[in-house]
Amino acid sequence: MTDRLHSFTLGDVVRENARWLPDTEAIVCGDDRLTYPEIDARTTKLANVLRDIGVERGDRVAWLGLNCHRLFEFIFACSKAGAVAAPLNWRLSSAETAAILEDIRPKVIIGSSRPEFDEVNANARAVLPSAGWLSYDDGSYEQALDAASSVDPAQDDDDEAGVLIIMTAAFAGKPKAAVLTSRGIVQQDLMLGAVGGVKPMTETYLSSGPMFHIGVLLKAFALFHWGGLNVMIPRVDAEEVCRLIDREHCTSAFVFGPTIKEMAELNADGRYDLHSLNDVLGGTPPPELDDAWYSMTSCPRPGSQPRGAVGYGTSETVGMITYEGRLPVGTGTFGRPGPAMAVRIVDPDGAEVPVGQIGEIVARGPQVMVGYLGLEPMDPQGWRWTGDLGRREADGSFTFLGPNQEMIKTGMENVYPVEVENALKEHPAVKDACVIGVPDSVWGHSVRAVVELADGEPAEPDELIEFVRDRIASYKKPKSVVIVEALPRSGPFVDRPAVKGKYGEGETWQ
Amino acid sequence: MTDRLHSFTLGDVVRENARWLPDTEAIVCGDDRLTYPEIDARTTKLANVLRDIGVERGDRVAWLGLNCHRLFEFIFACSKAGAVAAPLNWRLSSAETAAILEDIRPKVIIGSSRPEFDEVNANARAVLPSAGWLSYDDGSYEQALDAASSVDPAQDDDDEAGVLIIMTAAFAGKPKAAVLTSRGIVQQDLMLGAVGGVKPMTETYLSSGPMFHIGVLLKAFALFHWGGLNVMIPRVDAEEVCRLIDREHCTSAFVFGPTIKEMAELNADGRYDLHSLNDVLGGTPPPELDDAWYSMTSCPRPGSQPRGAVGYGTSETVGMITYEGRLPVGTGTFGRPGPAMAVRIVDPDGAEVPVGQIGEIVARGPQVMVGYLGLEPMDPQGWRWTGDLGRREADGSFTFLGPNQEMIKTGMENVYPVEVENALKEHPAVKDACVIGVPDSVWGHSVRAVVELADGEPAEPDELIEFVRDRIASYKKPKSVVIVEALPRSGPFVDRPAVKGKYGEGETWQ
Repeated sequence: MTDRLHSFTLGDVVRENARWLPDTEAIVCGDDRLTYPEIDARTTKLANVLRDIGVERGDRVAWLGLNCHRLFEFIFACSKAGAVAAPLNWRLSSAETAAILEDIRPKVIIGSSRPEFDEVNANARAVLPSAGWLSYDDGSYEQALDAASSVDPAQDDDDEAGVLIIMTAAFAGKPKAAVLTSRGIVQQDLMLGAVGGVKPMTETYLSSGPMFHIGVLLKAFALFHWGGLNVMIPRVDAEEVCRLIDREHCTSAFVFGPTIKEMAELNADGRYDLHSLNDVLGGTPPPELDDAWYSMTSCPRPGSQPRGAVGYGTSETVGMITYEGRLPVGTGTFGRPGPAMAVRIVDPDGAEVPVGQIGEIVARGPQVMVGYLGLEPMDPQGWRWTGDLGRREADGSFTFLGPNQEMIKTGMENVYPVEVENALKEHPAVKDACVIGVPDSVWGHSVRAVVELADGEPAEPDELIEFVRDRIASYKKPKSVVIVEALPRSGPFVDRPAVKGKYGEGETWQ
Repeated sequence: MTDRLHSFTLGDVVRENARWLPDTEAIVCGDDRLTYPEIDARTTKLANVLRDIGVERGDRVAWLGLNCHRLFEFIFACSKAGAVAAPLNWRLSSAETAAILEDIRPKVIIGSSRPEFDEVNANARAVLPSAGWLSYDDGSYEQALDAASSVDPAQDDDDEAGVLIIMTAAFAGKPKAAVLTSRGIVQQDLMLGAVGGVKPMTETYLSSGPMFHIGVLLKAFALFHWGGLNVMIPRVDAEEVCRLIDREHCTSAFVFGPTIKEMAELNADGRYDLHSLNDVLGGTPPPELDDAWYSMTSCPRPGSQPRGAVGYGTSETVGMITYEGRLPVGTGTFGRPGPAMAVRIVDPDGAEVPVGQIGEIVARGPQVMVGYLGLEPMDPQGWRWTGDLGRREADGSFTFLGPNQEMIKTGMENVYPVEVENALKEHPAVKDACVIGVPDSVWGHSVRAVVELADGEPAEPDELIEFVRDRIASYKKPKSVVIVEALPRSGPFVDRPAVKGKYGEGETWQ
């Protein structure tokens, strides 16, 4: 908790940017073009609309709709109103949406009046019949703004209070609501300006990823904070993306690989000028379109220069806590920790492991969330345990290995399956692998690899064990290898519990 | 107050830099060369030395000595020990030093054993006979470190607690002890990395200004934080400065104008290679040495490119709150506010004045001090009043005018003397001017200018009044001008109270 004198909130970002950038365009969305002072005025009015509906300090407000400049305004308005903004994924199932809304219990939902939203809206109203409602795309939002007071309610007097909820991925169980603070978001803005590749004032960013993801939002926040131009698009559409890059001379964009492929194909005749674009987050073109893509844009080829806003991060830490960009390249795969967050690699007891060894990634500092809404509070003296595995390299750089789905205890040693799996996958005959622990009368557990081979590539278990032994510590190598036709999968991911059930010799999923 | 989970302190800077920069040199001081892990280890040991002497959380520790890597270590060690570091100016008078020590009451003083410090040391011991004592330059410091525990005491669990005291200038009355926080210093580090011209990793900075000034310290902190190399020099000496720039290939330095003059003269024969130097804070060469200086260094000529770590700031806000550097140039003289501090121009009631009008500069945000040690606490809902006058320009940029020494009320209007003085000084015949209020039966007060003319440059009062009227609002022009042989001065500054006493028609100093 910080006092007003020492706070700098998302509301302050809008208030101050209106003053130091009085003539600068901040957001383009469809035919709407808004300057920083206009955003300041509109967010004040929206904050008052929310308060008139009954939103009080600490209340949640949800967004159930597409990308739009109003989504961005809604987050800043929640700050001014002292509320917590929750941009939600409206394409989840009814059951998922219901579970999330019951968790968050927003006082107001801002949603769409378009027919495709009928089902999600009906569902939301059934779950929360008493929530206030505002449609952002039928004119009622603008009418409400016109009628609202233009006196800033200024309820944001603590920049360590929650201001934004990001729903985490539901890897196991249901998604959780990570509550982020203004202080954490502002620090990320400063980090991205310093070493994360955001270029103060001179950048135009096409925010074409879904804005309920922190990875998309954090770049849009930073660019806004640093006086750049955010170009919004309701949802991704390759031709519209091309048209906007051409019209607005976008220098950066968030675009996934499949959209890049479509863009390169439809623009083969050069009908859109994409040469302003020099930085793309989210994906790369397929190899056969490499030459076309890199000649129709100014993007550097991967590896030809340090990447910009790239690193390891989690929703619970306002995204990145390690950075490439302007920090020196090392042997690690994900840059280095940014210097205003403590990042450690620890064993299950929380003791830091030596350099070069794998452990769980923990973090501490201003970007750490307040906690998960409605769940047990975090230890104020402790660390945020990310649930991910990493390694500090001898040169100080950082490697992220994957989620810490489980750990095998064999004798006194800890073996993380992901490390063994990565070693196995380096073998040309291995298509995929899942490493599990099986009961062992001597060691408690021993390491077993269940392996799916690439078509027509034979390999013997002993050969694979030797292959792994050459790459990682001997105690981590599989004691047994089971070669299977096909690993059980859930979507694109190997279904580890199913592998354990089938090949685990009675070991159950922890 | 922030919890440990969300804090990032100066102690954390050292701890984390040791991890992400394990092989990097951090500080060069004389023949000592120290890496980041070495600084981490040494600051832990010094923190334990201080705790062994009896320093507890919140206690102050003073430094009474020259620049040295140990001064830098002492600040970071105080953070780890939960204490507050106070680097003091040892060249003050005995009375001034005594007053400061009585204010701060340090538990331990770290000082010099060199004979030139005998008087200041005796004085300090007389004021605070019970304070612990450690000499940094007779070997006892290193002996104490050798004997100390290497287990980090980790008492820095709140980055909004005081960690550094900077004594403010004693313009009127005695100096005050501004207590700054880790949070504020770390934010300044990030700002300097983003827009203040500090270049992550690649910069070597010769810290040749006195390190009890925030203007010198903040660049050294930021460079340390961003992985650069700090080169220390006990005190400024033109030849030694040249030698160190040559030996260490320094890219930036803090050097005052007179030292630059000496350097340009003594290096006329090019005996030192200064071409690594491309950024100097603190001064510029005299015109006759311009060509020599800009050809023996790589410094850009003033105005040829945006300046780096330059802007308006105060000790009470960890230095700068407006920046040139990477923010766009405008019509204002001091860049734009950095986007994580609120900066406003207000009237005496605290209401924001319109763009283009002069008022007092107030600030809010993480860089604001905790308060002055021992004085009334700050208003947690308020602003930091800087005592300086500024103006927001129409393009959003910022102009600093000078200290708000007083304000003249004439009718309903407020006139700030500094603005009228600046206008008068644009006249070629005016050497210096002091503007005061004198009693006026109609308006309460009217504006009077007391003017000292340049040698052999005659000017009439009416001419000067007309000259001012062409430049600023008519109600601000002097109603009377008194031309004097010489303005009363106190050192280099016009003695305003004396001017009022002599030419103020009975008006007394407020």
